[in-house]
Amino acid sequence: NSSFNQKNHPHRRYNPLLDEWILVSPQRAKRPWQGQTEKTSEEQLPAHDPDCYLCSGNVRVNGEKNPDYNGVYVFDNDFGSLMKDEVDFSEQPSDFFTLKPERGINRVICFSENHSLTLPEMEVDDIKKVVDVWQNQYKELGALDYINHVQIFENKGQVMGCSNPHPHGQIWAQSSIPSSVLKTQENLKKYFDEKGKSLLEDYVKKELEINERIILENEDFVALIPFWAIWPYETMIVSKRKIENLIEFSEGEKLSLASILKDLTTKYDNLFEVSFPYSAGIHQSPTDGKPHQEWHFHMHFYPPLLRSAEVKKFMVGYEMLAEPQRDITPEQSAEILKGLSNIHYKL
Amino acid sequence: NSSFNQKNHPHRRYNPLLDEWILVSPQRAKRPWQGQTEKTSEEQLPAHDPDCYLCSGNVRVNGEKNPDYNGVYVFDNDFGSLMKDEVDFSEQPSDFFTLKPERGINRVICFSENHSLTLPEMEVDDIKKVVDVWQNQYKELGALDYINHVQIFENKGQVMGCSNPHPHGQIWAQSSIPSSVLKTQENLKKYFDEKGKSLLEDYVKKELEINERIILENEDFVALIPFWAIWPYETMIVSKRKIENLIEFSEGEKLSLASILKDLTTKYDNLFEVSFPYSAGIHQSPTDGKPHQEWHFHMHFYPPLLRSAEVKKFMVGYEMLAEPQRDITPEQSAEILKGLSNIHYKL
Ligand SMILES: O=P(O)(O)O[C@H]1O[C@H](CO)[C@@H](O)[C@H](O)[C@H]1O
Ligand SMILES: O=P(O)(O)O[C@H]1O[C@H](CO)[C@@H](O)[C@H](O)[C@H]1O
Repeated sequence: NSSFNQKNHPHRRYNPLLDEWILVSPQRAKRPWQGQTEKTSEEQLPAHDPDCYLCSGNVRVNGEKNPDYNGVYVFDNDFGSLMKDEVDFSEQPSDFFTLKPERGINRVICFSENHSLTLPEMEVDDIKKVVDVWQNQYKELGALDYINHVQIFENKGQVMGCSNPHPHGQIWAQSSIPSSVLKTQENLKKYFDEKGKSLLEDYVKKELEINERIILENEDFVALIPFWAIWPYETMIVSKRKIENLIEFSEGEKLSLASILKDLTTKYDNLFEVSFPYSAGIHQSPTDGKPHQEWHFHMHFYPPLLRSAEVKKFMVGYEMLAEPQRDITPEQSAEILKGLSNIHYKL
Repeated sequence: NSSFNQKNHPHRRYNPLLDEWILVSPQRAKRPWQGQTEKTSEEQLPAHDPDCYLCSGNVRVNGEKNPDYNGVYVFDNDFGSLMKDEVDFSEQPSDFFTLKPERGINRVICFSENHSLTLPEMEVDDIKKVVDVWQNQYKELGALDYINHVQIFENKGQVMGCSNPHPHGQIWAQSSIPSSVLKTQENLKKYFDEKGKSLLEDYVKKELEINERIILENEDFVALIPFWAIWPYETMIVSKRKIENLIEFSEGEKLSLASILKDLTTKYDNLFEVSFPYSAGIHQSPTDGKPHQEWHFHMHFYPPLLRSAEVKKFMVGYEMLAEPQRDITPEQSAEILKGLSNIHYKL
């Protein structure tokens, strides 16, 4: 028998945030790819597009007109997945047909009036304004009695189902705590109840010691590839101190987050010299009015690209039925991302 | 307040197989789509393609030559995610860096020597030969002492990461029981321990009574859209009697499965008059040598298309960070699929 080597041998890794395993197949990166390739448009966009329903001054599908905004602009999604209205409902207990109405609010956040920008191309001060709005929105929406969770996220790139290149993110605020957040919360809580400390605080300390998966670090935040990452270049931004949610952020911390966001997304763009697609979002304490000492602010980045701007990882078949699987190891991905410049390739 | 109506109001539904919730937003189907569209190739393929590494008599990337097979042909995947070799490993207990080597076998199953076919276009007798091979493979691989789970699945279509249109599926057999299977097993077991009956047997009986989500039924199987389905046209084929795994299948049941597979995939193709992409796979008892009375054979179909052959559902952003979300309701999808012909549109 040869002895185990995580760079060459298939293995499973444990994700303590979700209490789940993933399959890592380092030897598989060598297989040839003859499958689908993604279109990546590298055309230069105008600063204002008369056909864009997110640009300032333009009319949206429902007839409303955007103000002539400058900087960040927030509005209710015209085609939300949730509705504010309360509905009458009498629950019928059932083994198989359990259903509950769900109330909530969907919002769109334009990051900038400039149609042609993306986060890595924005100034840190302007990204900070986005973080300010995240903080305010979390506070405002979370204060509503029927909103117990505020999900802030961004889908970037056509391949991530984003239908408009105008820089923007979304908020889905709702009555229930969504499945993945609840699972994370349970695992954070288990650790906190046992050790009296934050799981992610301890984890980040260990990662900084090992320094094998760290991509970026500043005074307040660390960006790393989790040991249990699923997507080829998945990363997580974690606050060094235990911050439960955005409300606790100081001005300095908001600036630090803006700065690490710029650097991380710049490295992403530099990886394949393309505007790098991803879904990203914040996990933080729910707004259900309960104490949440277990929570520790973090932000996930799930980018689909694997080998090039054209070839993505498909989470299909085995992954949908059995468990997530990755080819390149998190350590290999971290080395690559770490080695890339913080200066955007277009500059 | 208006009173709750599941056709119009956002709600969450509970999935008892995974102990998870999903968000249903029926009102959202109306939003316009300006995002990415999928290429669907409708060119007629030749019965034999000299450049296809799955066609009979052709040479594969690793230099091996396929035999001049007729019907079903199985071989070890040249670029597997698993390796058969045993490796030496000493576990180091850790809160954050838990990892275990994983042994296993990856196989490819060509469904037919005919490059131009897909399951719905094959004869029922020929599909039955595929089911025969699934049964034999499950038995053969499951008998190996280091194989405790045999995942049989098919990725169909470029949009599902399938790199070769030659009709084929895969098997990933391994030492561990994968996350999703284990979760399903825990929930089946909880129900079985409480009620002394199979969760899916009881569920299917109720669905047949209600008859709102049933697509197809024959002597031995039912094809339905689960109450908690995630994908727009997700379906599940369930055996009427409690069969733990493929080994227990009679000849008659194998033929019944082949027949419902043909009818279901035909309806799928007829939906948008396109070769319908999906990932499909079997959930059945693990091959770990333990008793598994709780298990009940079923097959999941996860097709990505939503509105047309070109527009798929993106499981991104909110779905990756929070929980799965669907627009069209399972009942609406069932009505549509049920109404479609069992005769393939190409005939
Ligand atoms: O094995 P294939 O067809 O090369 O690859 C495809 O199926 C696998 C199993 O579902 C996935 O891990 C891959 O991402 C996908 O591209
Ligand atoms: O809200 P959008 O941008 O129209 O839609 C996109 O993001 C949503 C939230 O992640 C997803 O549910 C949709 O499938 C996706 O296309």
